[in-house]
Amino acid sequence: MTDSIVKSDTPIRIVLIGSGNLATQTALALSEAGHPPVQVWSRRQANAEQLATMLPQATATDNMGELLCDADLYLLAVSDHALASVAASMPVTQGVWAHTAGSIPLSVLVPHHAAAGVFYPLQTFSRERRVDYMSIPIYIEGSNETVTTLLETVGQSISREVHRTTSEQRLYLHLAAVWACNFTNHLYALSEQLLQEHGLPRQALAPLIAETAAKVQTMSAQEAQTGPAKRNDTNVLQKHLDLLADHPDRLELYRALSDSIIRMYHQED
Amino acid sequence: MTDSIVKSDTPIRIVLIGSGNLATQTALALSEAGHPPVQVWSRRQANAEQLATMLPQATATDNMGELLCDADLYLLAVSDHALASVAASMPVTQGVWAHTAGSIPLSVLVPHHAAAGVFYPLQTFSRERRVDYMSIPIYIEGSNETVTTLLETVGQSISREVHRTTSEQRLYLHLAAVWACNFTNHLYALSEQLLQEHGLPRQALAPLIAETAAKVQTMSAQEAQTGPAKRNDTNVLQKHLDLLADHPDRLELYRALSDSIIRMYHQED
Repeated sequence: MTDSIVKSDTPIRIVLIGSGNLATQTALALSEAGHPPVQVWSRRQANAEQLATMLPQATATDNMGELLCDADLYLLAVSDHALASVAASMPVTQGVWAHTAGSIPLSVLVPHHAAAGVFYPLQTFSRERRVDYMSIPIYIEGSNETVTTLLETVGQSISREVHRTTSEQRLYLHLAAVWACNFTNHLYALSEQLLQEHGLPRQALAPLIAETAAKVQTMSAQEAQTGPAKRNDTNVLQKHLDLLADHPDRLELYRALSDSIIRMYHQED
Repeated sequence: MTDSIVKSDTPIRIVLIGSGNLATQTALALSEAGHPPVQVWSRRQANAEQLATMLPQATATDNMGELLCDADLYLLAVSDHALASVAASMPVTQGVWAHTAGSIPLSVLVPHHAAAGVFYPLQTFSRERRVDYMSIPIYIEGSNETVTTLLETVGQSISREVHRTTSEQRLYLHLAAVWACNFTNHLYALSEQLLQEHGLPRQALAPLIAETAAKVQTMSAQEAQTGPAKRNDTNVLQKHLDLLADHPDRLELYRALSDSIIRMYHQED
């Protein structure tokens, strides 16, 4: 990208580097928003083709040498550990390069390409499940104002929630997301195991999970907290520890989480 | 309750022992379902009155000696640790007594009253927030079939999901609920603290929390798992541990949860 300002009603030429869950969902949203990606690169040709066939105008390649060199935006949606090496191998000298990783600073791209940015959609993506992209917050950062403006234009075409942040803030956003999403989902998985082991259907907890998440849409999690650790109910806590005696891993986690809750609400006790 | 079968279109005379969040939400639902509680007892008269005024036909008392003796059902919605002593102090000899505690066996009531049961709605209740009771699973148990049938009738008047369980299954349901609700909500609280400390609004994670909970309504939590621990991404994990270095409690929890995820998905590694 030179000094041209891309108008929001002109399709922005986007090349997708990557074909995973985030790349797929973002590509579909961009396509519907009038910015259908023009090319998909993946380390594996079959993966590039699988995503390209879902897009009206995209070609597929696994060859960095075949990358289109006239795109406005190269969106690097690859795994965190591949990002630096993928960036180092890109022969392109044009356009804006932006990565999509929550925990990686903008500065990783700058040595490879001056017009660099970050385009971080804060959401959990699974291949089988379309998400409502318009409600996903996208956190952007650019190495200069022209880059930031382009990323803002692209972001606003698919989301109502586009925010500028620093690399440091994004790092904490990602860390908080790990707690609120990845760890939370793991607690769901542990509870599913418990139900399964005792002949109970996993759907038994579905309304509780839905309500627990719905509560914090309108009140803070501290206000919403309930349960034996919140009440410091040592009888129930001991009963649960006894039930978990055969599973030292779960026992330790139960104890650590309960202690953490007790510390948060009973520091004065 | 003697041998009479209560018809579902006849109001069931219910006395509520307790006035907390569960008692309140259950009383409101019963009232709307045509079974308005006729009396509320609470250890504190003001609390009994507060709930009674929300109900069309209920009187309030803090005196066990004033309990109506002709009700069909005495619903003991008191805290777990108060349950045994409250039951011991009830002068009533009629009707069914049922408690609402997930982790307390039916056998706690039987020494005090032969027609005893459990009426356990598996949900998280907060005073400020009405819940859709019809979708809350209610787990019931009775000391005989007449009791169980009465509780089933009452349950089905306010919920589509009424299930018979044993005390042991209910104990595991409650334990699983602690993981999926109380611990999950605590992770939300920890992530809110992180955001707050770094000048970020807690609403930033609202769409992620909603989607994480929505995913497991249609797929298992194991299928839905994402994040650095699932990928065993040691770079990101180490980066996060570094960020948490000043908070030993959070650091230990982060490590324990990540290790547990890695064990679940990378046992062969």
